[in-house]
Amino acid sequence: MKLYSFFNSSASYRVRIALALKGIHYQTVGVNIRIGQQNELAYRRMNPVGLVPTLLTDDGEFLSQSLAITDWLDRHFPQLPLLPTADPARSRILEIVYVIACDIHPVNNLRVLRYLSEELKVSDEEKKRWYAHWIRQGLSAVEQLLLQRPPGPFCVGDTPTLADCCLIPQWANALRMGCDLSGYPRCKAVYDACTRLPAFIAAAPENQQDKISA
Amino acid sequence: MKLYSFFNSSASYRVRIALALKGIHYQTVGVNIRIGQQNELAYRRMNPVGLVPTLLTDDGEFLSQSLAITDWLDRHFPQLPLLPTADPARSRILEIVYVIACDIHPVNNLRVLRYLSEELKVSDEEKKRWYAHWIRQGLSAVEQLLLQRPPGPFCVGDTPTLADCCLIPQWANALRMGCDLSGYPRCKAVYDACTRLPAFIAAAPENQQDKISA
Repeated sequence: MKLYSFFNSSASYRVRIALALKGIHYQTVGVNIRIGQQNELAYRRMNPVGLVPTLLTDDGEFLSQSLAITDWLDRHFPQLPLLPTADPARSRILEIVYVIACDIHPVNNLRVLRYLSEELKVSDEEKKRWYAHWIRQGLSAVEQLLLQRPPGPFCVGDTPTLADCCLIPQWANALRMGCDLSGYPRCKAVYDACTRLPAFIAAAPENQQDKISA
Repeated sequence: MKLYSFFNSSASYRVRIALALKGIHYQTVGVNIRIGQQNELAYRRMNPVGLVPTLLTDDGEFLSQSLAITDWLDRHFPQLPLLPTADPARSRILEIVYVIACDIHPVNNLRVLRYLSEELKVSDEEKKRWYAHWIRQGLSAVEQLLLQRPPGPFCVGDTPTLADCCLIPQWANALRMGCDLSGYPRCKAVYDACTRLPAFIAAAPENQQDKISA
């Protein structure tokens, strides 16, 4: 199995956590999105959207979209399920997953931030405010959702799930961007619990072979 | 069952299609997001993110996030499954779902367009270009994905699925915004096939009781 991935992409990071939690062996192929390798023809043939990550399965199939990939992984490698089949846990996990994957991440990813600077000539200061605004909106909601769930080390239940696979990369991203995260103690507790686990350490951006300096 | 929804919100529209396809009886409660009703305390208690839709189940549970709601509906009302359990159909559907729900819709929704005008003082012309840019990026990808799938009236297979629940509202939105959609004939064929079906007609914005004029 091969994962076409960028060390600092949070969608790639989600899938790396899922692979590591399940103990799946795979090979990383770095796609440097800072210099536009995701737009090269060979990559676009595997992934028409031109975003990372893409998974190449052992059957030679290409899968795009981090959440479609984690769904596939959960079905083909059911050990340590990322998404239980029963309610209320399943819905409670999915609510958190989608706040992050649909409401926070897409608005703050590299291509959007680039459009703001390059097309709309937005200043670095305004861009930082934009980033912080959507982090604040999104993480306040995640914090509320976590407070509605029984307390525990992870987002939902006693083991890491798809919600943690999404929250940890988003939190790491916000930290890197210098956001004030003091208002989300439950999120922080989950981040602290997860990032002590070997699977999350193995999946972290700083431990990827395709890591490049800023 | 009650759906807290806005007639013109495409996330609400997705859920309305799912409910109609499954023949589920429900009551609509209009939440006018143009005047900020989604930010009122009573609504925020049901939906901490402050976005539409929210489903109130017959057990008195509130569910947010359109895709968490369709997942719940598919498990509790398995007639006409929106997402088959088997590959390759399942992954092929999810790739389309997430291109729309994660890569197109969030960047172009009302709160983001408002931030562009109100905070960044972006002109109407530039805002239109922004909208069209993400539609072009996203629908080109969906068109490619559809071309990789066996031809048929719907996105994947012989019946409407979650992919169609996502594509039709996004297409309708782009039409309303005056985008040039001539480059996506496969998407258009799916739109034409779906919008002839009673479930899609029942779910359309113009047929909602909470419809208000622009």
